[in-house]
Amino acid sequence: MFRSYTCGELNASHINQEVTLAGWVQKSRDKGFMIWIDLRDRYGITQLILDENRTDKTIFEKAKSLGREFVIQVKGTVIERESKNPNMATGEIEILVSELTILNEAQLPPFTIEDETDGGEDIRMKYRYLDIRRNPVKNSLLFRHKVAMEVRNYLSNQGFCEVETPYLIKSTPEGARDFIVPSRMNEGQFYALPQSPQTFKQLLMVGGMDKYFQIVKCFRDEDLRADRQPEFTQIDCEMAFVEQEDILNQFEGLTRHLLKEVKGIEVDKFPRITYEYAMKTYGNDKPDIRFGMEFGELNEVTKHKDFPVFNAAEFVVGIAAPGCASYTRKEIDALIDWVKRPQIGATGMIYCKYELDGSLKSSVDKFFDQEDLKKWAEITGAKPGDMIFVLCGNTDKTRTQMSALRMELATRLGLRNPNEFAPLWVLDFPLLEWDEESGRYHAMHHPFTSPKPEDLHLIGTEPGKIRANAYDMVLNGNEIGGGSIRIHDKDLQARMFELLGFSKEEAENQFGFLMNAFQYGAPPHGGLAFGLDRLVAILGGQETIRDFIAFPKNNSGRDVMIDAPSTIDDKQLEELNISVVVNN
Amino acid sequence: MFRSYTCGELNASHINQEVTLAGWVQKSRDKGFMIWIDLRDRYGITQLILDENRTDKTIFEKAKSLGREFVIQVKGTVIERESKNPNMATGEIEILVSELTILNEAQLPPFTIEDETDGGEDIRMKYRYLDIRRNPVKNSLLFRHKVAMEVRNYLSNQGFCEVETPYLIKSTPEGARDFIVPSRMNEGQFYALPQSPQTFKQLLMVGGMDKYFQIVKCFRDEDLRADRQPEFTQIDCEMAFVEQEDILNQFEGLTRHLLKEVKGIEVDKFPRITYEYAMKTYGNDKPDIRFGMEFGELNEVTKHKDFPVFNAAEFVVGIAAPGCASYTRKEIDALIDWVKRPQIGATGMIYCKYELDGSLKSSVDKFFDQEDLKKWAEITGAKPGDMIFVLCGNTDKTRTQMSALRMELATRLGLRNPNEFAPLWVLDFPLLEWDEESGRYHAMHHPFTSPKPEDLHLIGTEPGKIRANAYDMVLNGNEIGGGSIRIHDKDLQARMFELLGFSKEEAENQFGFLMNAFQYGAPPHGGLAFGLDRLVAILGGQETIRDFIAFPKNNSGRDVMIDAPSTIDDKQLEELNISVVVNN
Repeated sequence: MFRSYTCGELNASHINQEVTLAGWVQKSRDKGFMIWIDLRDRYGITQLILDENRTDKTIFEKAKSLGREFVIQVKGTVIERESKNPNMATGEIEILVSELTILNEAQLPPFTIEDETDGGEDIRMKYRYLDIRRNPVKNSLLFRHKVAMEVRNYLSNQGFCEVETPYLIKSTPEGARDFIVPSRMNEGQFYALPQSPQTFKQLLMVGGMDKYFQIVKCFRDEDLRADRQPEFTQIDCEMAFVEQEDILNQFEGLTRHLLKEVKGIEVDKFPRITYEYAMKTYGNDKPDIRFGMEFGELNEVTKHKDFPVFNAAEFVVGIAAPGCASYTRKEIDALIDWVKRPQIGATGMIYCKYELDGSLKSSVDKFFDQEDLKKWAEITGAKPGDMIFVLCGNTDKTRTQMSALRMELATRLGLRNPNEFAPLWVLDFPLLEWDEESGRYHAMHHPFTSPKPEDLHLIGTEPGKIRANAYDMVLNGNEIGGGSIRIHDKDLQARMFELLGFSKEEAENQFGFLMNAFQYGAPPHGGLAFGLDRLVAILGGQETIRDFIAFPKNNSGRDVMIDAPSTIDDKQLEELNISVVVNN
Repeated sequence: MFRSYTCGELNASHINQEVTLAGWVQKSRDKGFMIWIDLRDRYGITQLILDENRTDKTIFEKAKSLGREFVIQVKGTVIERESKNPNMATGEIEILVSELTILNEAQLPPFTIEDETDGGEDIRMKYRYLDIRRNPVKNSLLFRHKVAMEVRNYLSNQGFCEVETPYLIKSTPEGARDFIVPSRMNEGQFYALPQSPQTFKQLLMVGGMDKYFQIVKCFRDEDLRADRQPEFTQIDCEMAFVEQEDILNQFEGLTRHLLKEVKGIEVDKFPRITYEYAMKTYGNDKPDIRFGMEFGELNEVTKHKDFPVFNAAEFVVGIAAPGCASYTRKEIDALIDWVKRPQIGATGMIYCKYELDGSLKSSVDKFFDQEDLKKWAEITGAKPGDMIFVLCGNTDKTRTQMSALRMELATRLGLRNPNEFAPLWVLDFPLLEWDEESGRYHAMHHPFTSPKPEDLHLIGTEPGKIRANAYDMVLNGNEIGGGSIRIHDKDLQARMFELLGFSKEEAENQFGFLMNAFQYGAPPHGGLAFGLDRLVAILGGQETIRDFIAFPKNNSGRDVMIDAPSTIDDKQLEELNISVVVNN
């Protein structure tokens, strides 16, 4: 035993006890005749004191030699502190050191091990093991564990069985790009790492497992955008003999439980909106509803007023930014520049101040009178003091631009409070989306998603209009989970593959085992998967997932700490019957 | 909602209730005027009844058309059964069906979905989703979940934090063969799948995580022996500021907790034996101690008695098989044939009956008198009625042979009761083992294992004699967990790599990040990993792990259900800059 207590648990009740502690030197203050050391471990910090008059000389000298991050073990007596620190769990006491052992020395770390560090992203990633000593990262990992435990216990108590599905599976060209694994024993053949356990969880339903979940790593070999990882973690769930309503209730229950247990927050029944409504109202299928600024469609009231830009536009939309009537010309111009950036791509923006005296003042007063502008205010829900911003153009693009503006304004206005949680369901996603490049329909969710029975008649005529029994759970502007009722009928599944442009052979080759399984009594079933990394980050009130992953990869998919990926031995390649193709 | 109850919960208290059930047709008995159907789901079986006089004619006819494994939904009234079945949870009642919906039809399954099936291993693997419907497999998966939940809750309550370590890591030539994953974004480079999270858990200790665990998939690309899987699951654990004693106590606590919670069995404090004692006494470092038959070394008492075989042998060892004095000549010969099989490799076996009258009768009476044989009995602990079996030859080989014989006899004698659990610790493993082929030492555990400080002086002279602070937990003849105190000193770690024949460059290239980490204040630490698949199988009283894995692979590493691995698109290979080498 290297310690009798951790560095986070001693308080006034332990005064006069002899204790042994071990940990890292956070910092030390040497006043010549007196040395204070902050000793740190996972659980907290305890102040040590060495006093020229009361401490053995050898030990006192040894204490002087300690550097930051040295690992030490001390014995001593718990004494009352002269100047107590009420902000610290152990702030009432300190340890008068009688023995001191250096367990390991430490070089000066490349960045400070403090809550606010001087280390940049790159250096912290390279020395991730030091970064993890910092409270923000350490606490994020502990928080992740707490969330995962709550999820497991909740689902387990509800009768769900966690089943481990395989990691070495079969590659399918559908969807995102697979990571593949050459098989040594099966020459010229490859496994793939799962993008999700989708087919396995459906097979578990065919197998009568009834309620399945798994917290599981998934893999996608995609070019990494910021905050995407090639390996990520899902809470993967599936239930048999359920309808959409059952699934929504089940997982709304889970999320409500999490918010209560890990955040102490009780939320009402989740609002439910359709995909169509979400796109119309927020320009987005994962709306942040912690604030308003809902879209007002202005086509009707802006057309035929001699303003050529609006007249030429397919779509005109406005939002009312609360309290922004006070924006200066400079602030407005900055915002116009913001929407004109290539990432957003608007060609310009019209604005209209709703003055506190009730008058309206727009950048297009030449074309629109007070009467017209009043209608804008009405439709966008603007109140005196607000500013209406208007964008126009192609419907889809303009919605996307306005959605980005809405989020940006909310951020600038401080309306995206990380301690406020506004979950909702978005329902009735389209079954298919048209892909211009390949000239065919793709499954919006995946090829196993069930169409709504009442839309099935559109399959031969307007497949793009078929809605799916698919749903997303959205939290604070992020899709945190998504799922669907699955097809459980082999004929319908075959028709779906056909619709998605699979030949019979391709369907058979890739998903034959699933279609085959459906011939032996598949129950109605459906499910959902949460992205755990994102969920934990949002619950933790953070924008980025990186601190909630112990050893994340950078945007090139590299682990800079261990320097992976790397070249491998020729012998290894030879055994696997593969070779590297060198491109000149 | 497809059901108001599951098929496992209705009893006499529900009589007269209108209920809805859904599930699979287990079987039906059609008596012409009356049809009984066993409806099955994960939770049990409920008997349905349709009666020509009481059931609507259309429904009655529909019920006649149902085949095995059809998925149906029924509504009906809970009624008291005429002939109750006390062996069934729902045996007091049946459902008088008033509505019947076929949710999905089913082809006749390729094997019977019964506890004792007529399906062979291969067909059951191909249709694993049907195999999972069978109680033995389904219950094994539910049991595995229960064990995993107990492990997580126990460790979490003890302050352990589950941290997910990466799956895409770096390949190291040391140890078993890695599965590798080509990186598309880093041309000519490869990730490896982890054989264990060993280095990451050590880095987490350097990072101050203090108590870590993870239930995690690991991967080894080895030729598969029976009951080995290329992907397997570990309960991986690590602690900082601990000595060996702390770890033994911690994980003995976990195992005791598991035995109590999932088996209802209380076990005493685990016996602890050294590796040396285990080899001497059981010829094996994972002894089954549910029974005796400990080795008696007979060198002293068998030499110089004119029996040339013993005189020529390096090692003579005997065991006393309880109650086997009654073995017939035929039985003895069969056993001699058994030890002479190539898998065991003995050249012969001597035996000695300890008759109930106290006399001894051996196969080498020509050379040994009663006095001599009495000594054999004394040393092997034989009692009247027992049979002493003696093997001789090279020490290591003979121990291995005798160990196999001991296990075989125990099996034949019914001494390996799957409901009895005899855990123990084996301590003080050698640090190194000599590898004839490569002419150098290998780490017996892994290169991070700490030597015993008191043996360190042997490093320059007799490294093979250095004992490690390494330990295995053994249960019923299986190693279920193993671990060690790790080296946390960078100089000692460097010396270890040197001892293992690593050049400085190789050590730096492969483990530089770990040695680097040790420069920044590594705490003393150690840990252990359990093999979950095996642990669950043993707790479940089974010999084979396969039923405790939802989708296992066969001995060629193939998943015959999904037909993986498989060939992949040339486009995929091209993107990854690799090609398949065709061997003619």
